[in-house]
Amino acid sequence: MPRTLARILIDDHLVDGDPTPGEEIALRIDQTLTQDATGTLVMQELEALGLDRARTECSVQYVDHNLLQADERNAEDHEFLRTAARRFGLWFSKPGNGVSHPTHMQRFGIPGKAMVGSDSHTCAAGSLGMLAIGVGGLEVALAIAGEPLWLRTPEVFGIRLVGELPPWVSAKDVVLEMLRRHGVGGGVNRILEYHGPGLAGLTAMDRHVIANMGAELGATTTVFPSDHAVEAFLRAEDRVHDFRPLAAEEGAVYDLTDEIDLSALEPLIAKPSSPGNVVPVREVEGEPVSQVVVGSSANPGLRDFAVVAAMLAGRQTNDAVSVDVNPSSREIFADLTRMGATFDLITAGARIHQAGCMGCIGMGQAPASGRNSLRTFPRNFPGRSGTPEDSVWLCSPETAAAAALTGVITDPRALAEKLDLPVPDLALPERATVNTEMLVPPAAPEDARHQELVRGDNISALPDFEPLPDELDLPVLLHMDDDVSTDEISPAGAQALPYRSNIPELARFTFTRIDEDYPDRAKDTGPHAVVAGDNYGQGSSREHAAICPRFLGLAAVVARSYARIHWQNLANFGVLALEFTDPADLDRLDVGSTLHLRGLHGLGKTRELTATDDDGAEYRLTHHLSARQIEAVLAGGQIPRLAHRD
Amino acid sequence: MPRTLARILIDDHLVDGDPTPGEEIALRIDQTLTQDATGTLVMQELEALGLDRARTECSVQYVDHNLLQADERNAEDHEFLRTAARRFGLWFSKPGNGVSHPTHMQRFGIPGKAMVGSDSHTCAAGSLGMLAIGVGGLEVALAIAGEPLWLRTPEVFGIRLVGELPPWVSAKDVVLEMLRRHGVGGGVNRILEYHGPGLAGLTAMDRHVIANMGAELGATTTVFPSDHAVEAFLRAEDRVHDFRPLAAEEGAVYDLTDEIDLSALEPLIAKPSSPGNVVPVREVEGEPVSQVVVGSSANPGLRDFAVVAAMLAGRQTNDAVSVDVNPSSREIFADLTRMGATFDLITAGARIHQAGCMGCIGMGQAPASGRNSLRTFPRNFPGRSGTPEDSVWLCSPETAAAAALTGVITDPRALAEKLDLPVPDLALPERATVNTEMLVPPAAPEDARHQELVRGDNISALPDFEPLPDELDLPVLLHMDDDVSTDEISPAGAQALPYRSNIPELARFTFTRIDEDYPDRAKDTGPHAVVAGDNYGQGSSREHAAICPRFLGLAAVVARSYARIHWQNLANFGVLALEFTDPADLDRLDVGSTLHLRGLHGLGKTRELTATDDDGAEYRLTHHLSARQIEAVLAGGQIPRLAHRD
Repeated sequence: MPRTLARILIDDHLVDGDPTPGEEIALRIDQTLTQDATGTLVMQELEALGLDRARTECSVQYVDHNLLQADERNAEDHEFLRTAARRFGLWFSKPGNGVSHPTHMQRFGIPGKAMVGSDSHTCAAGSLGMLAIGVGGLEVALAIAGEPLWLRTPEVFGIRLVGELPPWVSAKDVVLEMLRRHGVGGGVNRILEYHGPGLAGLTAMDRHVIANMGAELGATTTVFPSDHAVEAFLRAEDRVHDFRPLAAEEGAVYDLTDEIDLSALEPLIAKPSSPGNVVPVREVEGEPVSQVVVGSSANPGLRDFAVVAAMLAGRQTNDAVSVDVNPSSREIFADLTRMGATFDLITAGARIHQAGCMGCIGMGQAPASGRNSLRTFPRNFPGRSGTPEDSVWLCSPETAAAAALTGVITDPRALAEKLDLPVPDLALPERATVNTEMLVPPAAPEDARHQELVRGDNISALPDFEPLPDELDLPVLLHMDDDVSTDEISPAGAQALPYRSNIPELARFTFTRIDEDYPDRAKDTGPHAVVAGDNYGQGSSREHAAICPRFLGLAAVVARSYARIHWQNLANFGVLALEFTDPADLDRLDVGSTLHLRGLHGLGKTRELTATDDDGAEYRLTHHLSARQIEAVLAGGQIPRLAHRD
Repeated sequence: MPRTLARILIDDHLVDGDPTPGEEIALRIDQTLTQDATGTLVMQELEALGLDRARTECSVQYVDHNLLQADERNAEDHEFLRTAARRFGLWFSKPGNGVSHPTHMQRFGIPGKAMVGSDSHTCAAGSLGMLAIGVGGLEVALAIAGEPLWLRTPEVFGIRLVGELPPWVSAKDVVLEMLRRHGVGGGVNRILEYHGPGLAGLTAMDRHVIANMGAELGATTTVFPSDHAVEAFLRAEDRVHDFRPLAAEEGAVYDLTDEIDLSALEPLIAKPSSPGNVVPVREVEGEPVSQVVVGSSANPGLRDFAVVAAMLAGRQTNDAVSVDVNPSSREIFADLTRMGATFDLITAGARIHQAGCMGCIGMGQAPASGRNSLRTFPRNFPGRSGTPEDSVWLCSPETAAAAALTGVITDPRALAEKLDLPVPDLALPERATVNTEMLVPPAAPEDARHQELVRGDNISALPDFEPLPDELDLPVLLHMDDDVSTDEISPAGAQALPYRSNIPELARFTFTRIDEDYPDRAKDTGPHAVVAGDNYGQGSSREHAAICPRFLGLAAVVARSYARIHWQNLANFGVLALEFTDPADLDRLDVGSTLHLRGLHGLGKTRELTATDDDGAEYRLTHHLSARQIEAVLAGGQIPRLAHRD
């Protein structure tokens, strides 16, 4: 049977297992990507694993999340990461060099390679025909150490693109259309593979936008073919030698299919507070806006900033609006500056921030409570902006720029008509700025071995976790609905993020967006459970969302279903991830119930178990853990499991 | 007697009193400047005063301090300030428009005008021949309401400049030389007036550097003549119509004098952690550096950034150094971009931040503990960077750029010799970018009256303070040395600053850099005193440093001497500022002693009083408060005094 591109990439990297959807497989990993918010744990895990030197073709440690430095902790973590990257033979991308995803695409991405990254948007590299998967930090540490990645084979969801985007509609609207159709769970356990004649009008960076936000559909990853657009991109980046063509085989059969007529799309926007709340911009026109933010890995390309600059050039941003620009990479910022667009943005009244993730992970730029903030970002989960009662909308750069000018949500097509705006002729340079000044190459092995890790006081050792007992009696401390994100489990933001290398301190923020007493109740209770609906743990890949609750005594989660990365992270850190066999049972359990679990040491032999509550009522539960994962959970997590193996 | 320029400016604005050093005078105020960290209180004070519309020629509310927005509070304060500026007929400079001092100089500064500002570096406007004085917020509120400024007439300290600065030595080295010679108390109760042939080589922006850091000498203000350099500056800013020549009268006699031969200066640097710890750079060469920050009101000019860009252009910043650039105003950032220097900085590996004060007030960019950070900033008080155990050095842009390249403290002359660097030919544009896009003009009176003040939950009402009793028994809670800064009394930084409109919350940070238990002990104790050495309350103008301790029960400070602004703020908020008649008495008092004060209601009739401790030992104390200030202290502060007057 002719193969999809996703399947070709899997076959090319398969080292164990049967690549049938649902079966566990092991894949050889060529490249890894870590960012600072997750990377400090990865570096500590490399230490715990006793690694001497990275065994991948290319591993890069980025610093893009924690750039604000409100006290010494972030700067000390940067120094820790710099010395750890040197010690283990990794590239080090200095603070200010940019967001990992566009920077990696510009400098390191190679069609056909497999990559894991401790960031949920790692999938963005699918824009170059890579198999790029966001995972927990420990999986990245194992990949750096030369271990394969284990995962359940996803289905392949083929999306055929036809037609051409109309003026004032851009790549962001394509992925917002996917979210409008399929919701935040539409990609779970699936690879999204785009194909068809509509690709001809999408540059590699346009595809990055679409691939990046595959994470918001819950997809394992997104794959685009490697074609002329990828070749043109690599040529512009002075790396055409890394190009190889890749596509699905003629007549490839997908597990699911859909088709999008690009010509029929219109400007779309995700309302607060889920990327899945998508409506046409015209339906919400006139809503007042107090902030517009442009940037992030969801709209990182030179084009995405240049189109905003072109729309604002010679005009005045609205008096009541703060217009914030986060350059996504330093090379893109340099090009934007070289072509005069930075000057136009400054002149029009934009606040230009350092290159990095910034407000996208709540690192500054928090809006006023209840006031609308329009962002070209990938996520608008409640409170992720740093403001608990926030009102964040997600849209294209065109829609963002229109609101910057008018002060209200505005369909850019309507604005263009009113102002008689021509469709911007962006005149992007054919050759991109190539500048590796802030990319420190791996040290020679003999130098690396002598590098000491410089560790600030805020970097605490990873906590030790106990093996799982055979019997557990677990009070239920939280009862949650669908789509709980890792931002709600372990928040990002300027308050919490500086503690990401300090589990005892960070744990004080756990679940506080859902129940501010949880950390105290959890400590008082000891071993306990939480229950939730579908798609539990969506969003960021941060393994802190498994480690922190575990540190506070979380022994089991029972949910209707899980987001992939968080599910893996729970197993990696010894938390039992169970599912309701009957989804309706969620409503029978409440805070205050106690779940009695027996025979846990036999979990390797069965997918089912029955729990009882204090009244003797029964709950049928299921798990989908592999034998390898069960072994980890029983040992108290992957680290004790690997340690015991020695 | 021929008059100094300072005296001419005083005479031009005198409305009451005798301008003899030490005597209290009242001055008519033409302009005011407020920034956001102090401005929210000023706006609340305008409300408390029942003001309808500003009575000055020009009053501007800037937003330059609290730009990071880690949660909703800063954005909500910006909105409060925007609506308050509109309500009271002030200009509003939007977040991202830049630091108040260079922006005010560019757009509003006029030779011969008198200005007060609720920022200690307001004195920078002396570069244009203005009489510009940093004061507490309440004094600015009164000036906006049309009241004169009351102050003790300072002495005039004439500094004659001769010669010309050698290559690689710049204006910052001139003011560092003043600090080296005269220390952080060398300007207390003095106006520094520069004159002489050496002025010919100093642009208006060079003079800004020197005038700005007059604050670090404790000076009431700094004055430069308004000459050809000022005319050229105003012409470049498209405001030559605002020029008028001003200079001291021929043969003017100064109260004190000094002379600096510019030709003999060399690169200087202030070691941690006082602007007064000045040594030649060559004496500390080779110290490792982990951060270099360029910007702030102390080195705000286009030239100061362009010289760094020229030195870094085509070179690589050191791998172990974070090079941070804070553009000081949006117009300067636009010019820097237009001339290609922004591109050079990005390309060399600098992190470019939004225009504003940023790291200078600990708003981001906090360095790692104990690692050297070289900054072109005005202040390096302990912990002001946001890092409690910081190691911050102050230097010129040339010295900063040299360290960015080498990774160690480096005399720029030595680097130039080693690299065969030519003296940068900066080719600065003759005409500056003029762009008022982010400056919102005062609303028409009829519109202003309808403007509601939008107030976030974090903006609490000013606390009410009680009148001073006739007798006080005050346990001494702190015993402090010389030169305690307002950063140590009420810290800035990303943690504390968001609470600057919320005294009960902000008070929890009071004196914690000196004694972290102070807030709890103060609350438990009730009315109490603190004792200190010379120059108590140096640094920032923030009146929070008076209000917060007062809120916690501080009734009296006894010090050897005071910094001017803080001394005024104490009186304004009802704290008794007393001095030891015998400076040695400081050592006789310790934490645990109790001071018994009697007959306080008679303070208006005497400058002396005698306190006793529990053992009956006597302490002779003095005060220098005017009748007006005594009235305020007895009433519980200026606000209750003015309220009782109605």
